[in-house]
Amino acid sequence: MSSQQDKQSRLDMLGSALDKSEIRQLRYMLNKGLRPVEAAKLLEKTPPKERELLWNLLNQENEGKILQHLGDDLQADILSRMDANELLVVTEGLDSDDMADILQQLPETVMKELLRIMDKQNRKRVEKLLSYPEDTAGGLMNTDAVTVRPDINIETVLRYLRRHTELPQSTDSLFVVSRKDSFIGILPLSRLLTADPQVMVREIMQTDLAPIPADKPAQEVARLFEDQDLVSAPVVDEQGKLLGRVTIDDVVDVIREDADHSLMSMAGLDEDEDTFAPALRTTRRRAVWLGINLITAFIASAVIGLFEDTLEQVVALAVLMPIVASMGGIAGSQTLTLVIRGQALGQIERSNIGWLFNRELISGVLNGTLWALIVAAVAVIWFSDLTVGIVIALAIVINLLAGAMAGTLLPMILKSAGIDPALAGSVLLTTITDVVGFFAFLGLATLFYG
Amino acid sequence: MSSQQDKQSRLDMLGSALDKSEIRQLRYMLNKGLRPVEAAKLLEKTPPKERELLWNLLNQENEGKILQHLGDDLQADILSRMDANELLVVTEGLDSDDMADILQQLPETVMKELLRIMDKQNRKRVEKLLSYPEDTAGGLMNTDAVTVRPDINIETVLRYLRRHTELPQSTDSLFVVSRKDSFIGILPLSRLLTADPQVMVREIMQTDLAPIPADKPAQEVARLFEDQDLVSAPVVDEQGKLLGRVTIDDVVDVIREDADHSLMSMAGLDEDEDTFAPALRTTRRRAVWLGINLITAFIASAVIGLFEDTLEQVVALAVLMPIVASMGGIAGSQTLTLVIRGQALGQIERSNIGWLFNRELISGVLNGTLWALIVAAVAVIWFSDLTVGIVIALAIVINLLAGAMAGTLLPMILKSAGIDPALAGSVLLTTITDVVGFFAFLGLATLFYG
Repeated sequence: MSSQQDKQSRLDMLGSALDKSEIRQLRYMLNKGLRPVEAAKLLEKTPPKERELLWNLLNQENEGKILQHLGDDLQADILSRMDANELLVVTEGLDSDDMADILQQLPETVMKELLRIMDKQNRKRVEKLLSYPEDTAGGLMNTDAVTVRPDINIETVLRYLRRHTELPQSTDSLFVVSRKDSFIGILPLSRLLTADPQVMVREIMQTDLAPIPADKPAQEVARLFEDQDLVSAPVVDEQGKLLGRVTIDDVVDVIREDADHSLMSMAGLDEDEDTFAPALRTTRRRAVWLGINLITAFIASAVIGLFEDTLEQVVALAVLMPIVASMGGIAGSQTLTLVIRGQALGQIERSNIGWLFNRELISGVLNGTLWALIVAAVAVIWFSDLTVGIVIALAIVINLLAGAMAGTLLPMILKSAGIDPALAGSVLLTTITDVVGFFAFLGLATLFYG
Repeated sequence: MSSQQDKQSRLDMLGSALDKSEIRQLRYMLNKGLRPVEAAKLLEKTPPKERELLWNLLNQENEGKILQHLGDDLQADILSRMDANELLVVTEGLDSDDMADILQQLPETVMKELLRIMDKQNRKRVEKLLSYPEDTAGGLMNTDAVTVRPDINIETVLRYLRRHTELPQSTDSLFVVSRKDSFIGILPLSRLLTADPQVMVREIMQTDLAPIPADKPAQEVARLFEDQDLVSAPVVDEQGKLLGRVTIDDVVDVIREDADHSLMSMAGLDEDEDTFAPALRTTRRRAVWLGINLITAFIASAVIGLFEDTLEQVVALAVLMPIVASMGGIAGSQTLTLVIRGQALGQIERSNIGWLFNRELISGVLNGTLWALIVAAVAVIWFSDLTVGIVIALAIVINLLAGAMAGTLLPMILKSAGIDPALAGSVLLTTITDVVGFFAFLGLATLFYG
């Protein structure tokens, strides 16, 4: 196969620094020594060149298993270099939900081609999963649930299970369904094991766990699992027909990504960002964020530019003005972070935002006054000028209040406008505290010195 | 009981705005309508006064169950108002691991008093758990594992289980132990159910899951669960004796808190911070962070102060200087955030930090050059002054490089010094990019205009 030859020659080139026995050891470690998830982690923390060497050392049958554990960014990278036939070989033997996840990373045309050459049964299963967005219960679920009927006894269930060699991973319950596959209840394994063999499934099944609608957002599914300490849960369609099940390992991924999202977004990064992405890609992505922030900086400069005359007159203002902007920015971003986390935890609502806003204002006044006095004292001593102290004290209180207001209201406004508060919030907040800070400080100075 | 009377009078006062039937509805909802975890979430998103009203509506037997689901901050708040006798009643009936968690929040003297009045069996269990730090496997575990011997057959195991009415929550495996309680292996329920009843436990137990040492850090335990998709895992002491088990629900809490930690710390907040803490407490906590950042701001001002003469001469410098500091700060915090996340994921090591450092430098030079040219062009047009363009271009490139270096190295240095990079990193980074930014810009200007 030409792709295999190609692979070998690339490998020779890349691995020239290693001798043959080292290569053999690496190959063994990647394919046999490490579990797929460990091999994936190793790839993720390896710089691009060595990463390609490692990838090329994988046996084809391991590629799919490792691929599914890679971050989206890196996964897309590797997938983009494969054609539909290679993809077919690599994804063979994966669970249908993992296969669907990988297919979602592919360009439309490659995905269609791959579905076309897949065997019919797989295609049907995968197409069913692909019909749900990735970030819903339907997108998270797999289709390997073990089902039983309500009108058989436990002994029959036990006999039926003994015909399996193993149950699917994270099976903590069987699902009880009707003849038409309607979900009726769950039968926890722990209850199955402690029950009298002669009892009917119907008598001991649990019906208090509401099945999850396939279109429920992944975040809410995660909250459900957290609140009820679930290990697996049934997913149903609008008619109540059992479609599959969500398991805790997929939910853990959602929780991890969700929490990462706020942190990374606030720095203008994507949570799927490959830590070891090549320099050019990194540069291109960061450039966008720097450009957006440059606009903020220019707006701040324009505000300062309004007061050139005052600055020429009192140079102490130029020395002190970053303090005002910085204190407002810090106070504002504390409020912003608290509110964004509160939103993610589902704590912030129309009914309590008013209280929060007031609390932040009170806290802003108190901290504003405290630090205004301290900064004013330092400024007066430094420049032997009482006016500069009064001006900076007032400006700091004003800017801390602006920070508190912006920090509370921006995430609310952005969220209801469908914009991600973690991404847009910090830039907008800085714009506000810079503009208010410079304008209040230099504007007041112009009044007092004018 | 006087504490009950006291409760009632506080309740009357707080609830005066609600009529009797509303109070009755609320009481019903809190004690019967909601699950404990839901009631805890409701309390967490309620401002302090209403929160106290709700808490006082709880029946005493529900207090403990709800308390264990509250964040540390709020939990400590409520606990501080109880004496040992009240605590004894409230914590009665909790699992020993949840009881230990609550005890860890108490002041030393109250904790000792509570242990003293506890019944002997509970005290022994709790003291055992308290001997492990909260953030280790020992601190996470509970002691409710179901154990079996290796030399019995499956039929006997099944008969033994049927004597239980229910198995402990999240039981996906039984643990196989020797006569002296040494851990030997696990027997997954799914295997138990599919096995031939005549087979011995020894023949089908799994021995490939290494038990977790009690002193393993909680973060590493979480990674283990994530990597191997575990639902529960055995915890052992140094001699290999089974102590208990960690379950996925506790691990999910660790993952959630861990991820929250970086986000909140970067804003100087604690991940356990109560979103609806009273204004005074909020003010006091924020004051510390504002004070630390003020030192940074003063250092930046002092650097600007060095160049007062130049600023007096060319006022355009005062207008443009925030741009230099801000671009360096933004670029630096992108690098910092990426490295901190990489550390949390265990991706950053001595072997790859060099590559990362170079990548960030290259990216810094490229983005620095790009934006330096754009800013320079704007500056030259704005102030009709070529020199100011050259100066700001050079300063931006220098500061983006400083940001890249600080963003990569600071988290490494802080971590090896045992300081939390998420907490200290952003303050130190801003100090560096402010100082370098202002010094480079104003220093170069002094040279060029001098």
